[in-house]
Amino acid sequence: MYKPNKKMGKLIIENRSEIFRPSARTERTPASVTRDILKVIDTPGMISFAGGLPDDTLFPIQDLKNIFETSVSKKGPKLFQYADTQGHSDLRAWITERYYPGSSAEEILLTSGSQQALDLLSRYFIEEGSPILLERPSYLGAIQVFSSYAPLFIGINYTEEGPDIEELKYALTTSSERPKFFYCIPDFQNPSSYSYSLEIRNSLSKLLLENGVPILEDTAYRELYFQEQLPISLCEIGPEHTISIGTFSKTLAPGLRVGWIKAPKKILKDLIVQKQSMDLHSATLNQELVYGFVSSSKYEEHLSLIRKSYRRKSEHTFDCFRKNFGDSLPLQISKGGLFYWLEFPQEIDTDLLFQKCLEKGLATVPGSSFFVGKPERNHLRWNFSNASEEETKIGVERLFEVYREMS
Amino acid sequence: MYKPNKKMGKLIIENRSEIFRPSARTERTPASVTRDILKVIDTPGMISFAGGLPDDTLFPIQDLKNIFETSVSKKGPKLFQYADTQGHSDLRAWITERYYPGSSAEEILLTSGSQQALDLLSRYFIEEGSPILLERPSYLGAIQVFSSYAPLFIGINYTEEGPDIEELKYALTTSSERPKFFYCIPDFQNPSSYSYSLEIRNSLSKLLLENGVPILEDTAYRELYFQEQLPISLCEIGPEHTISIGTFSKTLAPGLRVGWIKAPKKILKDLIVQKQSMDLHSATLNQELVYGFVSSSKYEEHLSLIRKSYRRKSEHTFDCFRKNFGDSLPLQISKGGLFYWLEFPQEIDTDLLFQKCLEKGLATVPGSSFFVGKPERNHLRWNFSNASEEETKIGVERLFEVYREMS
Repeated sequence: MYKPNKKMGKLIIENRSEIFRPSARTERTPASVTRDILKVIDTPGMISFAGGLPDDTLFPIQDLKNIFETSVSKKGPKLFQYADTQGHSDLRAWITERYYPGSSAEEILLTSGSQQALDLLSRYFIEEGSPILLERPSYLGAIQVFSSYAPLFIGINYTEEGPDIEELKYALTTSSERPKFFYCIPDFQNPSSYSYSLEIRNSLSKLLLENGVPILEDTAYRELYFQEQLPISLCEIGPEHTISIGTFSKTLAPGLRVGWIKAPKKILKDLIVQKQSMDLHSATLNQELVYGFVSSSKYEEHLSLIRKSYRRKSEHTFDCFRKNFGDSLPLQISKGGLFYWLEFPQEIDTDLLFQKCLEKGLATVPGSSFFVGKPERNHLRWNFSNASEEETKIGVERLFEVYREMS
Repeated sequence: MYKPNKKMGKLIIENRSEIFRPSARTERTPASVTRDILKVIDTPGMISFAGGLPDDTLFPIQDLKNIFETSVSKKGPKLFQYADTQGHSDLRAWITERYYPGSSAEEILLTSGSQQALDLLSRYFIEEGSPILLERPSYLGAIQVFSSYAPLFIGINYTEEGPDIEELKYALTTSSERPKFFYCIPDFQNPSSYSYSLEIRNSLSKLLLENGVPILEDTAYRELYFQEQLPISLCEIGPEHTISIGTFSKTLAPGLRVGWIKAPKKILKDLIVQKQSMDLHSATLNQELVYGFVSSSKYEEHLSLIRKSYRRKSEHTFDCFRKNFGDSLPLQISKGGLFYWLEFPQEIDTDLLFQKCLEKGLATVPGSSFFVGKPERNHLRWNFSNASEEETKIGVERLFEVYREMS
């Protein structure tokens, strides 16, 4: 075995910090706050409303077990062999049929969750300095991955009806370069829980098409409606200029890491090449488990079950807030998704509130993490799908206590 | 529903090609030849020696089934919930114990196969124009993903003992900028099947350390020895300046997509942030299945089984070549790995040979795909682990037939 001599040992120490010279990309990728919070939620006594975690007691474990057995018996070793980059063809066909009627399985690429879809599309589109449009606030995982590609962020305020169209028009006229895309979550957005009205969907799609700007529509929460289905998707309105991203993380199980991109065939070919270079293909077994479940009659039942359960949890959460905060938080009962977007008075700095809450054994996410540009600092994102009713009761009480101390 | 008016319909047609404007990165990522070949191997009558496919009849399916059942019963829903980015802690500990004695599980990051490890390290290191060192020939999946980051490739000839050290010295002295890393496969390389001698391992590690250049060591084939274990790994020789990449794709099953990076703790933190932004984390279930199997007593048995089986297949392949080609191909019997690197006389263009073989129902990979810079055009890569003995017999005969026609 090679033993470094004294001189070399010294070399190691002197040069170590310099041997590995990261790219500028590394320096500019921010750590994800929620991922960091996920690490502290195992602290004893900590109650967490931080992650966008589905309720894992509702996962159809027994069904997945049965599907695994049947699939392994039926498909054998092929389930564990290298496979096609584009992904499970039956699952792709199922996705088109359910979400993109009239389009073909050839327009779908399966990904390792929708986070990989975002990374892949960033790779595809973004040059350093490319202007990209996105909502204010927006999903922090998207902001994180976009940041690593160093775009020029243009934030458009997300109101209760959808993005501010006048602001969008202004941005489109004043941008020195045509934006590469508009990234948006039109359905029960993370974090705001707002959705686009039908009117906004139509005018936004038209406006972006006229300006030659593609839409990246993230549909992660679209199935999680508590009252009525949302209006038609942007992808159905304008399939020619919309790329749609979806995931089974919220409707089935995030640990399986199965998501997808739906894009016009012509560009999908290039996306597949990128995916090849990123990880060859996503795990075959996971796609098979998802397909086995969603293509069975049990999927609709399961969706009804989680909608009912999350609705009940959102109502309970709402009641707890009302009981503790009275009218001091302007909250509306949730219509879907996984989050309450708590708006505090301007004088409350939620970065500080968040820190103080952590000390009291309460994890949430400070609103500032969801903004590009100058952040608003008076929101907290509160997940209601994961905690039990009792935890929610205690959690809201803890929050109120900290809030009272600060105001 | 929104219906585009005539004017808009026209707009769609005129602008469609321009609406999606890919990055330069997209333009420069080459499609992977093997992935494309994988698509044609289902043609009736086609025999393939193209992919680096392990023999799937040897996959321990029944064991994986049992592990799945036990794990689901024991860990329940947590197996399907969001999980830590760094990956399964027991599996990380197992990897360190087996491959990196003396280091800690904190130095391991689990990835979706080793291809993702290569992408992640490219992200971490490469700026446009960064010089990087790699072997000539080298793994085409690595060349593909590196290419998308637009480095300046510096190829170092891989001889039967390892890289040409004098050439490496020359490259280090003449490079205008210090190379970001040296990427290498010291064990039964893909495609050449060469390995580094102990002497080369020691001098190469020392030379690169003295020049402040980190090593990315790809250990994909290290376990697949047919006679004796290979000398100490570069990572054991110089852990301070070596990042090691590994995978369970060749030793267990590639469809599970489980690989890893072993790197000094200090830089691993940054790698984890990149991984967060890429896909949050790799699938929990797959890591659990791998852990269940490799930590059991069955893993060693399984490794013995595949070593024996691949050795037998490599010997059979060798015999077929001898029988058909006699001395016209300078072949040595394989010592490990998955490939024969066939060297034809200079006047045979293997790009053309490859095409003619495809027409005869025989898939291989032309050698030119494995070179950065000016490719050598007289090699074919021949995988021996996947085909049956009968297929191998017919395959070699077909190859010889085409070869005879060309010479």
